[in-house]
Amino acid sequence: MKTAVNSLGRIVPLEVPGAGAFEPYSSPFGRIAAASGMRSAPKPVRAAVPCRDKRAKSLRDAIEKSGLRDGMTISFHHHLRNGDAVIPMVLAELDAMGFKNLTFAPSSIPDAHDCVADYIRSGLIGKLYTSGVRGELGKLLSSGEADIPVIIRSHGGRARAIEEGSIQIDVAFLAAPACDCLGNINGVQGPSACGSLGYAITDARSAAHVIAITDNLVEYPLSPKISIPQYLVDQVVVADSIGNPAKIATGAARITRNPVDLKIAQDSFRLMKAAGVVQPGFSFQMGVGGASLAVASYLEEYMVEKGIVGSFGLGGVGGYMASMHDKGLFRTVFDVQSFDAVVTKSMLSNPNHIEIDASWYANPFNAGAVVNNLDCVVLAALEADTDFNVNVLTGNDGVLRGASGGHQDAAAGAALSIVVCPSFRGGVPSIKNRVTTITTPGETVDVIVTERGICVNPRRAEVLEAALKAKLPVIDIEKLKGEVEKLTGVPEPIEFDYDRLIAAVEYRDGTLIDGVYAAK
Amino acid sequence: MKTAVNSLGRIVPLEVPGAGAFEPYSSPFGRIAAASGMRSAPKPVRAAVPCRDKRAKSLRDAIEKSGLRDGMTISFHHHLRNGDAVIPMVLAELDAMGFKNLTFAPSSIPDAHDCVADYIRSGLIGKLYTSGVRGELGKLLSSGEADIPVIIRSHGGRARAIEEGSIQIDVAFLAAPACDCLGNINGVQGPSACGSLGYAITDARSAAHVIAITDNLVEYPLSPKISIPQYLVDQVVVADSIGNPAKIATGAARITRNPVDLKIAQDSFRLMKAAGVVQPGFSFQMGVGGASLAVASYLEEYMVEKGIVGSFGLGGVGGYMASMHDKGLFRTVFDVQSFDAVVTKSMLSNPNHIEIDASWYANPFNAGAVVNNLDCVVLAALEADTDFNVNVLTGNDGVLRGASGGHQDAAAGAALSIVVCPSFRGGVPSIKNRVTTITTPGETVDVIVTERGICVNPRRAEVLEAALKAKLPVIDIEKLKGEVEKLTGVPEPIEFDYDRLIAAVEYRDGTLIDGVYAAK
Repeated sequence: MKTAVNSLGRIVPLEVPGAGAFEPYSSPFGRIAAASGMRSAPKPVRAAVPCRDKRAKSLRDAIEKSGLRDGMTISFHHHLRNGDAVIPMVLAELDAMGFKNLTFAPSSIPDAHDCVADYIRSGLIGKLYTSGVRGELGKLLSSGEADIPVIIRSHGGRARAIEEGSIQIDVAFLAAPACDCLGNINGVQGPSACGSLGYAITDARSAAHVIAITDNLVEYPLSPKISIPQYLVDQVVVADSIGNPAKIATGAARITRNPVDLKIAQDSFRLMKAAGVVQPGFSFQMGVGGASLAVASYLEEYMVEKGIVGSFGLGGVGGYMASMHDKGLFRTVFDVQSFDAVVTKSMLSNPNHIEIDASWYANPFNAGAVVNNLDCVVLAALEADTDFNVNVLTGNDGVLRGASGGHQDAAAGAALSIVVCPSFRGGVPSIKNRVTTITTPGETVDVIVTERGICVNPRRAEVLEAALKAKLPVIDIEKLKGEVEKLTGVPEPIEFDYDRLIAAVEYRDGTLIDGVYAAK
Repeated sequence: MKTAVNSLGRIVPLEVPGAGAFEPYSSPFGRIAAASGMRSAPKPVRAAVPCRDKRAKSLRDAIEKSGLRDGMTISFHHHLRNGDAVIPMVLAELDAMGFKNLTFAPSSIPDAHDCVADYIRSGLIGKLYTSGVRGELGKLLSSGEADIPVIIRSHGGRARAIEEGSIQIDVAFLAAPACDCLGNINGVQGPSACGSLGYAITDARSAAHVIAITDNLVEYPLSPKISIPQYLVDQVVVADSIGNPAKIATGAARITRNPVDLKIAQDSFRLMKAAGVVQPGFSFQMGVGGASLAVASYLEEYMVEKGIVGSFGLGGVGGYMASMHDKGLFRTVFDVQSFDAVVTKSMLSNPNHIEIDASWYANPFNAGAVVNNLDCVVLAALEADTDFNVNVLTGNDGVLRGASGGHQDAAAGAALSIVVCPSFRGGVPSIKNRVTTITTPGETVDVIVTERGICVNPRRAEVLEAALKAKLPVIDIEKLKGEVEKLTGVPEPIEFDYDRLIAAVEYRDGTLIDGVYAAK
């Protein structure tokens, strides 16, 4: 395998067998500035003779009519989270039909879907394009036993890859919570309602063939909201159930009581205030983890007290953001992916709760995704290093157990990107000399907040100055690392076999920011 | 010029110099069935470095930054109708900047825009792709004096041409009634509100560069409706005015009192009833002409009386359709283009008044445009012939004075297509042996209703039977023609010079259904 060392010092392949050539990562915006004039791959023209009912007799019938062949690319969306029944249903059918060597290209893989590992073993899946890999699948891939090409992309990077033609979807299978017989779809009605269909919209626009799978066939035309219009959908399959509502529509997460998370959240919020981002018209994205949610609660209190109204909240939208929107603290919510049942209801009833597709959210190759307009984002991390690079993909053992998600995208776009992270977890320090895998380059991470102090990226002198002026507990990242290592000891570094690539990790612009290699 | 005779007996060019090769028309759905496997032209990849404000200093500045060069293709939308100030504004600027030989590719040209003729004379416009040509422009082109390639396309055909790459828009100029500094746009707010932006959405998705021009810059993000998202818009130009509200937002048209139109409308409605299309769940499109509107009034009375609720109204939506929707007579309105101020308000406030793009409306090359689901459409005509072919493009003198519009699309898609037409106009019979120009093939026209009787296409035996059973005034089309000619005389046929092509007329599938030639 030919490799190169990228600008972050990481060994990356120049070609992934079966997945093409890649450039090494160089800088957050260099390739964007240079991409003008590139042209996308030609797209198949769809031309269907008029029909009044696109229902297929069965899933198998739909697959047969789709023209799917061995070696082609299939896509799915992960909006139904761990309640999703469509990925297992379709993969089982494809396996039973004897398909081999498909490229499996979902927007991400719900944690519960260990079955994906089985279908790699069976030869059904011969290549994997995803945002995240966890559980059984992560173990299988990291063991090196299943030697298939794996490309990890961020949500914005996947949209870019689809639009530029790096991912050419032959058949998209869409879990459709509400669908009519001609394929108009939304995600906000029915027993398997999941809210936004942001990632699915992108797939439907670009796939050569689209099969909607629904357990909620409604009278034509679907109303009052159409997220994916009929002209993008070729066939409709009616199934008994596309998901387990209890696992799709989880209740809103509670604010953490963990004192470490609360301390991190409080300091993060104080930093936001000190840096001057919490102003009328400000825009915000947060994760749904304990500390992120707690930041929002401090933020909410302050906005109410000061009468501040923000312009928009963005995400991955959870119930807390939807509730701040309902209270008028943000004028608009842009929602590419909803995290709980409250959000689904808000999207159905509130016209300012706007469903956005993956390109609108985060694609770096367009005239301006909304992440570019973020004043502040609060993001989690598995680990970070003293160059502020962040890893959200692999564990301390080097095993795949995370997802790129919108991390790279929001960090690059936001004026102030804050990474929240306890200083150690399970006896292992979170700040390293070198993270196991870089998913987000340090150049785009402005601040790392731990319960032991706030590390400000030296590239952001004005933020450092503001934090010091506000007498926040600022600490040099090397010093923090040393303090933590006094408590935990210095973990033994993992040795990797750089001849055995497990997964290539794309930066959002399509260059390779890192490789995941087999541990020796 | 190499020509061929198509299946309707029309001489059509096999190549239009500067506009490429064309196939002759053969049948309404033949090419659609054969098009699978075609691939679109590669699209330019847009990649803009993050920015928080896309406002250009001036229109000229925006044009300079757009990369526009002589010979390139520019597009516009015609949703502002005769109130549009953007086409004249931009063409004047381009002319002043010295551009030459541009392909002018608007969705259509408002009647008032005689300036387009001037810019053909000046050499600014070297090629014309449009749906319609009227007034001064029609006279100029038909005179043969301005020898430039002209391609006439239906609204669905234009969407197809854009998506397949036959039209490659280099710079789209979008009149934007409401717009924020990053280019989120809607058509329903502000002094120049025009309702749906259906045609503009298609342009924005496919153009290499998009410039929004607005007289209503709103706080970011635009709310509560975004029709064209920021990621498709490269630059924003703020102008004093993009239109004359009095000419954009005309009041709802009144029902005609013309007895000829009323007779035609009444018989059309009786035919709809007899043919059994007015059932619960039925779907309908109508024009905004006198007779069409009167059909709707009969229909409304009947639906109220019988308690019938239709599934959807489609169009080109005027106030009458919006009002039937408000009264609950249709569950949904699909709106690609709004015709008056009432419609704009309805679209803003009613979630079941759904804005659709041109592909959703009528593109024949996708998984199913909504015209395919029409139970009935009522369409106007300039003239028809005894084969039921219809002309909506050229006058009795052969001069361009009409528009292809959605006529071909709706006629092909609807289960019952009714053409309404007085039997003669200004002393000239409307039914000919051969229409001057075929825009809509007779195979897709089921019935022609005149005040002197109803002509049913022999291809639709079951409709004829139903009409006879209901004792409607059915008349053979040859007989009708004879009767009218007794009153008016037989008009002198126009002689054409088939070596002098004025315009090529596409069928919606991209084949040539006819040519417009210079009169001898």
